[in-house]
Amino acid sequence: MASYVFGIDVGGTTVKLGLFDAEGTVLEKWEIPTITTNHGEQILPDIAKSVLAKAEEKSIAKEDVIGVGIGVPGPVDDEGVIYKAANLGWDEFNIADKLAELTGFTVKAGNDANVAALGEMWKGGGCGYKDMVAVTLGTGVGGGIICNGRVLMGATGAGGEIGHMHIVDDETETCGCGNTGCLEQYASATGIVRLANRKLQASDKDSVLRTGEVSAKTVFDAVKANDALAIEIAEEFGDYLGEGLANIAAVVNPEIFVIGGGVSKAGDVLLDYIEKNFQKYAFRGCKGAKFALATLGNDAGIYGAAKLVIE
Amino acid sequence: MASYVFGIDVGGTTVKLGLFDAEGTVLEKWEIPTITTNHGEQILPDIAKSVLAKAEEKSIAKEDVIGVGIGVPGPVDDEGVIYKAANLGWDEFNIADKLAELTGFTVKAGNDANVAALGEMWKGGGCGYKDMVAVTLGTGVGGGIICNGRVLMGATGAGGEIGHMHIVDDETETCGCGNTGCLEQYASATGIVRLANRKLQASDKDSVLRTGEVSAKTVFDAVKANDALAIEIAEEFGDYLGEGLANIAAVVNPEIFVIGGGVSKAGDVLLDYIEKNFQKYAFRGCKGAKFALATLGNDAGIYGAAKLVIE
Repeated sequence: MASYVFGIDVGGTTVKLGLFDAEGTVLEKWEIPTITTNHGEQILPDIAKSVLAKAEEKSIAKEDVIGVGIGVPGPVDDEGVIYKAANLGWDEFNIADKLAELTGFTVKAGNDANVAALGEMWKGGGCGYKDMVAVTLGTGVGGGIICNGRVLMGATGAGGEIGHMHIVDDETETCGCGNTGCLEQYASATGIVRLANRKLQASDKDSVLRTGEVSAKTVFDAVKANDALAIEIAEEFGDYLGEGLANIAAVVNPEIFVIGGGVSKAGDVLLDYIEKNFQKYAFRGCKGAKFALATLGNDAGIYGAAKLVIE
Repeated sequence: MASYVFGIDVGGTTVKLGLFDAEGTVLEKWEIPTITTNHGEQILPDIAKSVLAKAEEKSIAKEDVIGVGIGVPGPVDDEGVIYKAANLGWDEFNIADKLAELTGFTVKAGNDANVAALGEMWKGGGCGYKDMVAVTLGTGVGGGIICNGRVLMGATGAGGEIGHMHIVDDETETCGCGNTGCLEQYASATGIVRLANRKLQASDKDSVLRTGEVSAKTVFDAVKANDALAIEIAEEFGDYLGEGLANIAAVVNPEIFVIGGGVSKAGDVLLDYIEKNFQKYAFRGCKGAKFALATLGNDAGIYGAAKLVIE
């Protein structure tokens, strides 16, 4: 009986790989470098080699492998076609077919944020739920939408691009996407720093944030220490993100939001500010949504990739 | 071979019924009154009686019926449980099981707005697409989200409640839902009238709208007649709706938006204002979304209900 799965998470500098049993227990984790030269032509052959070597090392027969799941940083459709992955140098091609050809295994592919969301639903903060929105608060704001246990990819793989919802009308700075007033400009790690700097400039209030470097971490550390100005910043962050998540809820009505990414290391205090403001904006039929922190950290991608082939 | 389907759309005053072949051609349409007395206890028995009578009239054998689909005005989960349908007097129960028991047929149930969206995807403005958002601009603003050919119901049947996305921060009037600044307050038929009245009050500009009753229809008729003030109103309407739809696109990334409801009778001019403003706010990966008018009108519900059982 086939009973092993490989889960692969391709990043811009490192490829994370995991060997799982069919129940989703990780048996081994390892990494290889991502070689992006020559339009990233070596990336999939390197992955195939590493997967086949691991199978041989563990004496795993081909027929005992259920398949290989892979998450990549770019839009991927249901068939496994990636449209573009600028970080990897890739243009449009079918990753799933290509990796299947190189390994001889069944392969399923997905966008990395969506795949990480699937991982959190399977074995992380969203375990036990089937309608979930994963929110990644890192350098940017990413999202992964799970409906009825399946990742919502969208027509062109842009499903869950929640960082680019329009939230603020009178923003003057431009988002990385070219628009202005995107959620990402306020709720990402860099967005929180922007909010903090604006608040520090606009206010005369004393604050521990006036000493040393301002980061999402120092802001929420100051919130925990009851710093009044930091609390104002957290309120503003929570208001923007709460509004964004309430609007997402009016579209997909999830059971739970799972909050991950670097900013989520602030812990439960973060959820307090998000949830309170979510309740302020949410449609009554959506107010029952729960909030939890992501638990898998950087491993969400390999878990979710493995889950892609166990369905 | 089973080759007939019944599609049923339950409204507050009338139940619409349709008999379809398996390809989705409507063979007959009829209506019965919705009797809401005694907590609507007679509604499903009346429907069952009407369906069975039609089958007998057409000499359709039980085994030739694929099933019965039914759309109802309230949140319905995947199993067919309705949580509440205030218009019908219903509290929580499993409609699908109940109607199956009464008819002896396989029954699937869904929320009426979602089911109408499915109808438009199957045989209407969204025909040929599988990732679609139906937007109903009527007394309120409703939505139906179709992902990969399936209706997104959401955790508690509130998927697609897009009329209650928060759009405006400084609104002073309250939406029917209890919140303020909901999309419905600007993009519904009544919302357009509100925008128009505000604009008429705030401006000294001459306009045909200053004579006679203001309605969504008179506003868009005036737009077609090049009335400058009406064009300002249409721009404002388009801005709010364009922002809302761009935010929906950042979540579910549809191939197409299908615009229906009474307001959509304005025709293509409506799409111009929506699409232009959508492009202003949309994330680049979502800008390819198409826009079309709904084509099935009041029959969308029976088509979609029939489609629920043909999958």
